[in-house]
Amino acid sequence: MIYVVEMDVRLPDTWDEDKVKSFMERERETSQKWQKTGKWKYLWRVAGRYSNISVLDVESPDELHEILSSLPLFPYMDIKVTGICRHPNAINENLL
Amino acid sequence: MIYVVEMDVRLPDTWDEDKVKSFMERERETSQKWQKTGKWKYLWRVAGRYSNISVLDVESPDELHEILSSLPLFPYMDIKVTGICRHPNAINENLL
Amino acid sequence: MIYVVEMDVRLPDTWDEDKVKSFMERERETSQKWQKTGKWKYLWRVAGRYSNISVLDVESPDELHEILSSLPLFPYMDIKVTGICRHPNAINENLL
Amino acid sequence: MIYVVEMDVRLPDTWDEDKVKSFMERERETSQKWQKTGKWKYLWRVAGRYSNISVLDVESPDELHEILSSLPLFPYMDIKVTGICRHPNAINENLL
Amino acid sequence: MIYVVEMDVRLPDTWDEDKVKSFMERERETSQKWQKTGKWKYLWRVAGRYSNISVLDVESPDELHEILSSLPLFPYMDIKVTGICRHPNAINENLL
Amino acid sequence: MIYVVEMDVRLPDTWDEDKVKSFMERERETSQKWQKTGKWKYLWRVAGRYSNISVLDVESPDELHEILSSLPLFPYMDIKVTGICRHPNAINENLL
Amino acid sequence: MIYVVEMDVRLPDTWDEDKVKSFMERERETSQKWQKTGKWKYLWRVAGRYSNISVLDVESPDELHEILSSLPLFPYMDIKVTGICRHPNAINENLL
Amino acid sequence: MIYVVEMDVRLPDTWDEDKVKSFMERERETSQKWQKTGKWKYLWRVAGRYSNISVLDVESPDELHEILSSLPLFPYMDIKVTGICRHPNAINENLL
Amino acid sequence: MIYVVEMDVRLPDTWDEDKVKSFMERERETSQKWQKTGKWKYLWRVAGRYSNISVLDVESPDELHEILSSLPLFPYMDIKVTGICRHPNAINENLL
Amino acid sequence: MIYVVEMDVRLPDTWDEDKVKSFMERERETSQKWQKTGKWKYLWRVAGRYSNISVLDVESPDELHEILSSLPLFPYMDIKVTGICRHPNAINENLL
Repeated sequence: MIYVVEMDVRLPDTWDEDKVKSFMERERETSQKWQKTGKWKYLWRVAGRYSNISVLDVESPDELHEILSSLPLFPYMDIKVTGICRHPNAINENLL
Repeated sequence: MIYVVEMDVRLPDTWDEDKVKSFMERERETSQKWQKTGKWKYLWRVAGRYSNISVLDVESPDELHEILSSLPLFPYMDIKVTGICRHPNAINENLL
Repeated sequence: MIYVVEMDVRLPDTWDEDKVKSFMERERETSQKWQKTGKWKYLWRVAGRYSNISVLDVESPDELHEILSSLPLFPYMDIKVTGICRHPNAINENLL
Repeated sequence: MIYVVEMDVRLPDTWDEDKVKSFMERERETSQKWQKTGKWKYLWRVAGRYSNISVLDVESPDELHEILSSLPLFPYMDIKVTGICRHPNAINENLL
Repeated sequence: MIYVVEMDVRLPDTWDEDKVKSFMERERETSQKWQKTGKWKYLWRVAGRYSNISVLDVESPDELHEILSSLPLFPYMDIKVTGICRHPNAINENLL
Repeated sequence: MIYVVEMDVRLPDTWDEDKVKSFMERERETSQKWQKTGKWKYLWRVAGRYSNISVLDVESPDELHEILSSLPLFPYMDIKVTGICRHPNAINENLL
Repeated sequence: MIYVVEMDVRLPDTWDEDKVKSFMERERETSQKWQKTGKWKYLWRVAGRYSNISVLDVESPDELHEILSSLPLFPYMDIKVTGICRHPNAINENLL
Repeated sequence: MIYVVEMDVRLPDTWDEDKVKSFMERERETSQKWQKTGKWKYLWRVAGRYSNISVLDVESPDELHEILSSLPLFPYMDIKVTGICRHPNAINENLL
Repeated sequence: MIYVVEMDVRLPDTWDEDKVKSFMERERETSQKWQKTGKWKYLWRVAGRYSNISVLDVESPDELHEILSSLPLFPYMDIKVTGICRHPNAINENLL
Repeated sequence: MIYVVEMDVRLPDTWDEDKVKSFMERERETSQKWQKTGKWKYLWRVAGRYSNISVLDVESPDELHEILSSLPLFPYMDIKVTGICRHPNAINENLL
């Protein structure tokens, strides 16, 4: 099951530099752990914005939520989730 | 250069069935022509909506526009274009 | 896989009464056919608006799209799709 | 009287971990207390977002407000309330 | 059960003067029929806009929908429905 | 002169419990003082949201502003003001 | 009583040139008739847009509505009405 | 050159009473200094909201910015700027 | 005086091919006439959308309006106008 | 590759004057460093708002992101990025 997810970070302005740095490091570790499982297929930076667009290939909506909610910045992001399926005009049988 | 593009179709209600069918056929031909060039990497249906999310790999913004504006439904779609680049946390060197 | 779907009808003002009536009849037939399969669990009217909120239990995002896009009014509705999963505070093990 | 309610949590970034944890525990207790009464029928997590969609079956708008406003996070959520009624195309006589 | 309802009219520009006039007359008849029952308490014009704000006192969400959907312009209005209840700071015991 | 006013409270998350309680008390006193004058006709809670819809009958826009801006939470509310007038289809001569 | 009113024209694309011209002429006549009464104080074009910002000085909300709804394009404009009053920092006693 | 400017104040909830009072005083001094030059023609309170609508008559866009950005609350306001010009239906040759 | 203007075309779906072609030709002639005067400095296509971003250097808001409103598609475009001035961090004395 | 970028500053209200001043100085240094490379072509102030519109001429989306994300205020700005290309009606062969 493929999802396209857009995440916009709202960095809290009350955090000091150390707290920001610590969150960033844990954010990277968590996202890379999931990328290595093969479930987080693409992690793209939106050019010029504090946002990413990601493509995930998961077993279920529950697994999608498990992955995204494990990110330390999860409560501080605006997240848009789009579930996708096969387009009749697509020439490839597979989604990815 | 990778773009993620979301297209929402606003089907004109003044068109009769034949006109709609003719547009749909030409839309499929055009999108498949571009997919075969390898520039239109993914064409995904948004589950439950008259929309698609596409990933294109083009030479330039001009080529992106050439492709999208060649679609017969181009004037009747709401289109959101997002240019992407490498994310520092991505484990793959390449975008695709 | 459970989805909550909100559909707002934008009735084309260029259609005459017969065309509207014909669409309405085919809309009812289609939605009832899917309700009888047990996949379209709830079809609720939003009180005071030309909208419905529906709960569907489907095999896949593709099946969700098959059902919704089979509705005659599909191109004339604004549709919001929300995929759901288990809430940690829910006391029932099952979603439905 | 059935309501579909969507709640988006805006977790205050000025709260420390202990305060967040304490709110979360009281939030769970309160929502489970209401689920056990049978009035809070469904509590679903929106997959990938810090939000829930809930279905409540209450006596009156006042009771709906009593339940939702008793949640400790009530002042820190964006809440959308939709009152529903019978849809003419629904095949079931009952709403739930 | 009290509802505050805001209705914005989107007058179709494809209708000729006669059709508009006929709709307006039937709209008035229908809204006055409901006002006379005592269920449509207030019908106010929004000063300077093609909109009204209404207060209805009905038995149920179903009755609210019966009333609003009986208006000939119902499919051509943007309608916002707000269910209300007792405010703890209100000095009157009754809502109306 | 009748106004329908919708107020959404954005409770500051930096306030401690005592500050919140003190504001709430002064808010009640102020709103009840104005209700007793007969100028603040209706104060309704929006069911399920931290919002109210109010109907005020005042001498002038200046008096409306005097009343609303005297509320302690005035700077922390999103306020929508709608001036109303007689609707041609209303069966009552008076607005209230 | 002073109002600032912003009107955006949505010119119907189904009207032929003659109908547009006829509406434009009647629009000018109507707006000039009201300007001559001294009630429509300012009629400004928004630079670069098919919109105007107007300042009206009227007896009541009913008179404001009488003026605006008499414009032939009234049903085809998005209208935003703002009632104003004295600002405590204004150095002039009068609004105009 | 005439501009209509709408300013909505977002009062920071982290400021104590003294800081708020000090900002308010400097805000008044600054706005009155500009009103006395004749460049800030009208300063109107939006009835019922923490907002103003102002009309300024300046030499250039740079002067408009000099005036607005000199306000102490400038970084804490949502500001909408509308440049205006002569309307063909206006009966007065001058804008003010 | 420099303006950045974004224009989104809403092509009417009721126009036949000839009417569209005729409008397109007159649109090009008009925009090129203004470009040749040196007042319409830049005319850029937004990559992937039926929109342009333009930079104009004009004498006054009235001249800006004269140019934009002379475009045949003017009534069928959503137009966003932004007046600009010197930025304190800009290293060039001139705007263009 | 040309981009038009609009940046709106949301100055955190929790920062004291020194912190604001320090950020402003580093913001100026960074933006001027990039202007001197010739990649940041135009830096314009939006008249009357805490915003800028910029035109950048870069090698790639990655370079655009490198420049914008190096700004100290990057996490505290709402940024809108628009990629542009040649317009068929433009009389100049080059974009700048």
